[in-house]
Amino acid sequence: MSAFTLIRKDKFTSARSGKLTTIHGDIDTPCFMPVGTQATVKTLSPNDLNDCGVQIMLSNAYHLFLRPGMEVIRQSGGLHKFMGWNKPVLTDSGGFQIFSLALLRKISDKGVDFQSHIDGDRHFLTPENVVEIQRDLGSDIIMPLDECVHYPCTEDHARIAGERTFAWAKRSKDAKRQMIGEGSDKQKLFGIIQGGTYENLRKICAQQIIDLDFEGIALGGLSVGEPKDLMYNIARVVLEMLPSLKPRYMMGVGLPEDIIEAIDSGVDMFDCVAPTRYGRNGTAFTSKGKMTVRNALYIKDFRPLDAECDCYTCKNFTRSYLRHLFNTDELLGLRLVSLHNTYFYQGITRSSRNAIAKDEFKGFKKDFLGKYFSEECV
Amino acid sequence: MSAFTLIRKDKFTSARSGKLTTIHGDIDTPCFMPVGTQATVKTLSPNDLNDCGVQIMLSNAYHLFLRPGMEVIRQSGGLHKFMGWNKPVLTDSGGFQIFSLALLRKISDKGVDFQSHIDGDRHFLTPENVVEIQRDLGSDIIMPLDECVHYPCTEDHARIAGERTFAWAKRSKDAKRQMIGEGSDKQKLFGIIQGGTYENLRKICAQQIIDLDFEGIALGGLSVGEPKDLMYNIARVVLEMLPSLKPRYMMGVGLPEDIIEAIDSGVDMFDCVAPTRYGRNGTAFTSKGKMTVRNALYIKDFRPLDAECDCYTCKNFTRSYLRHLFNTDELLGLRLVSLHNTYFYQGITRSSRNAIAKDEFKGFKKDFLGKYFSEECV
Repeated sequence: MSAFTLIRKDKFTSARSGKLTTIHGDIDTPCFMPVGTQATVKTLSPNDLNDCGVQIMLSNAYHLFLRPGMEVIRQSGGLHKFMGWNKPVLTDSGGFQIFSLALLRKISDKGVDFQSHIDGDRHFLTPENVVEIQRDLGSDIIMPLDECVHYPCTEDHARIAGERTFAWAKRSKDAKRQMIGEGSDKQKLFGIIQGGTYENLRKICAQQIIDLDFEGIALGGLSVGEPKDLMYNIARVVLEMLPSLKPRYMMGVGLPEDIIEAIDSGVDMFDCVAPTRYGRNGTAFTSKGKMTVRNALYIKDFRPLDAECDCYTCKNFTRSYLRHLFNTDELLGLRLVSLHNTYFYQGITRSSRNAIAKDEFKGFKKDFLGKYFSEECV
Repeated sequence: MSAFTLIRKDKFTSARSGKLTTIHGDIDTPCFMPVGTQATVKTLSPNDLNDCGVQIMLSNAYHLFLRPGMEVIRQSGGLHKFMGWNKPVLTDSGGFQIFSLALLRKISDKGVDFQSHIDGDRHFLTPENVVEIQRDLGSDIIMPLDECVHYPCTEDHARIAGERTFAWAKRSKDAKRQMIGEGSDKQKLFGIIQGGTYENLRKICAQQIIDLDFEGIALGGLSVGEPKDLMYNIARVVLEMLPSLKPRYMMGVGLPEDIIEAIDSGVDMFDCVAPTRYGRNGTAFTSKGKMTVRNALYIKDFRPLDAECDCYTCKNFTRSYLRHLFNTDELLGLRLVSLHNTYFYQGITRSSRNAIAKDEFKGFKKDFLGKYFSEECV
């Protein structure tokens, strides 16, 4: 039985809804995964995530491998138990982090030798041990080690990284197949398509990953600094090639408008630090666009952040109070706006699913973006 | 009808239990008030406070007067609505803060002229306008402006401060009597006894405040740096003089052992920043004493902070996970330990009330302190 069921394709766009089955529960797609890099979605408790309607969260093998280390997580009974979250978890391999955070990195076909960005300790990660780490984390969805290039990047560099990502993808698949461990056969392994911003390379990478028959397919290396149009174009070129019966995950994307656009093109899964990072910086995402909570405009504004929102923050606190919390450097402010943003992001995917169910995604998208960019957000 | 009902006196100690009635609900005493200086108990939401069993919180007129300012709070419908808390609130006048934080302070019999510690703006606070500020905050319990001296302090200085506190107490009472405003007749005004560490002065101050017939009596100027024995002695001297039918509030106290000791001496109400300040610093209060969560001892300790605790933190997270959160500077750690500490403090007063109900406070105190200082906390 396939883990992914395509429930419906929207009649007028490429948007689709589906259901992804994991040992920790089903996930309705399109879905958005809040990011809990260090085994915590910053400022939010598992209860908060549940209250926001979060179905699956993302964590990061590289970070957890370094801190608290695999021995701690194994002995605590896996990542879910460690962090008190009993719904699905997808873990990124940390390829992206190795290439952006780690020190004195030496990459070879075998793997990556690097120094921890925390304490300088040397580590060697390979496609094989990265899969093992995620098996031990107990991740519902495992991402293979890949080489993610930044923008801009020469075609040669992007080609080499794409080839290595493919070679590593095969080895990850082999490692996963040979894996032994409680429930490890129920953990899903996705493939990642790299290729930079080069259409020709993306097509090659896509075909290679498609041929390997993973349980889901991810678009990596997007939203790494390239212009938005380029990102959307590359995504569309790849998406058109993908089999419809596999879930499609666009890694690290994005802002509300990016998510809506990508759902339109047929993407099923997203993750991004935006809701919590913006939340901690005092920016709220609302149906009428972004709001800078600290703005003096809101000193005596006794309305909620978003009149249409049913989150704990909007049901209980005013803009005036939230502004006061940011103005006085109170941690509750970071949390309440992160909570609202996380709820808002869940609303985007939930509303998209509802619209797809009625073949109304096109109208929903138009309304959402029209309102979101209406510049009426006061 | 008096707002305070003395329910029971313990047979073998001076401990007592009672009920204090306010417009926002009844408070069982002895009670502990978490501190929400800036209209938020640091890191905790009103829901969290409810989950901890908090019956009343404390806030601070001086801080709120400066930020967000009274116009914002008045327009938002009072402090309760502003911060989304519908249970009782006691506000300190901020006398203590004026003497510890404010700049270029000029004190006269009329009041205090000072510069805001935030923006340097000049303000003038008098016993009268401090009562008005708290009327407008909608505080259930109002504290008058007083002059709090630090330790050590000469007898002359303590005498002058005590005399001024008495003069201001009379004016506060007059101001309160003449006050007009919705529900202001139901707000309670407490008197504050100062007098430094001088028994003779404390006795004079106590008699003066007793004679003014406030709705509750506070012991101010304790826990300001003096040795513990001195604090306990001064408290006992004063407590023996107080009428039994008024609630007694020991301001700014304290650590768990201080609270137990003061309950033994007949105190009914407490406030202290300890549970949240220690929480943010990664120190948990447990039935077996204080615990430094970040300690390497706990790397693989999969027990809760306190096996006897039913708080959200202890029911869902291990020491290992909490240590990880502190180790990775994750804000959730600050919140989860603050939450536990706040719950633990409510447990101290709840258990005390239960013990008093059975004339067992003496045994409870012995058991609590024996365990708390057992040095078994691993």
